[in-house]
Amino acid sequence: MLLEKAVNEFSKLPGIGRKTAMRLALHLLRQETSVVEAFGYAMITLKQEVKYCKVCHNISDTEVCQICANPQRDNSTICVVENIRDVMAVEGTQQFRGLYHVLGGVISPMDGIGPGDLQIESLVDRVAQGGINEVILALSSTMEGDTTNFYIYRKFDKMEVKLTVIARGISIGDELEYTDEVTLGRSIVNRISFK
Amino acid sequence: MLLEKAVNEFSKLPGIGRKTAMRLALHLLRQETSVVEAFGYAMITLKQEVKYCKVCHNISDTEVCQICANPQRDNSTICVVENIRDVMAVEGTQQFRGLYHVLGGVISPMDGIGPGDLQIESLVDRVAQGGINEVILALSSTMEGDTTNFYIYRKFDKMEVKLTVIARGISIGDELEYTDEVTLGRSIVNRISFK
Repeated sequence: MLLEKAVNEFSKLPGIGRKTAMRLALHLLRQETSVVEAFGYAMITLKQEVKYCKVCHNISDTEVCQICANPQRDNSTICVVENIRDVMAVEGTQQFRGLYHVLGGVISPMDGIGPGDLQIESLVDRVAQGGINEVILALSSTMEGDTTNFYIYRKFDKMEVKLTVIARGISIGDELEYTDEVTLGRSIVNRISFK
Repeated sequence: MLLEKAVNEFSKLPGIGRKTAMRLALHLLRQETSVVEAFGYAMITLKQEVKYCKVCHNISDTEVCQICANPQRDNSTICVVENIRDVMAVEGTQQFRGLYHVLGGVISPMDGIGPGDLQIESLVDRVAQGGINEVILALSSTMEGDTTNFYIYRKFDKMEVKLTVIARGISIGDELEYTDEVTLGRSIVNRISFK
């Protein structure tokens, strides 16, 4: 049945149960045909036509993404992130004017993800081509993230590039007493000068 | 941008904000192309090919819906509901073996919905054709629902058909002290014999 099929498709999406799926399908049913077609084709076209930037592997409509192609950006700094959501998160802060490098994940032997499955070689190539002063590692603060950081650090051993990691510490607005010990400890060790 | 377009489409759905929309779009992006195509076309086909039963106006893949076409159902009883979700709700109870009639709403002058906008005439026609013993009114317990009930009641004035309304009362599992006065009052007035 057509409705059932649409409901099934909706309920495959993360966080969407049968009841919500039914509500969404019935909502679409009440819309104009052109509206529903716009919805359906937006999803299909997204998947069929999406490209990944050949420089930084970020999602892109073109060969080279808008960030890499932007002459206003500082192309001597690369921020290494796990995925495109992280690019969006960093972009959202409006605090970074450099370029990105999307790894596509972190090294995780448990999930069978090795260095070869990630865009690490192409990062090394980018840096080897010169012109890069700093590589900022902005991976998750997990064992897998730390492992990946270390792997990249070893790769850059003999290269003339500044390698930094983003600061870890207490979130803005958080209270000390509720912060976990590791984070609090790190934020004490990595204290910065009060200006 | 393709991703933005998909996110925009998702966030047009009821109860889906920008963040959820982004999560859903990125989820689709991680799926196989065939999976995303199945998703998109399910929605498009639903809208393009859906039919409404010419007898009861329920959603259907065929000219006459599966309920109306089912010889096992009691075709002497019609349950009048507002919309297809109500058909599903009543079907879900597995307590009703008759047929339905979907009005497409209730009379609501505030929203500019008059009797002519609803499938009332076709209900009268169905009953006038004979063979119907009982018409059960299962509309919302609102002023609009009551108005519609009364309108239908007047239409059936001279017809030989039993007109009933579904019972209103305290929900199963609810406590008396927390029930609103109108519902509690009705459930006392409409008390039934204890068997």
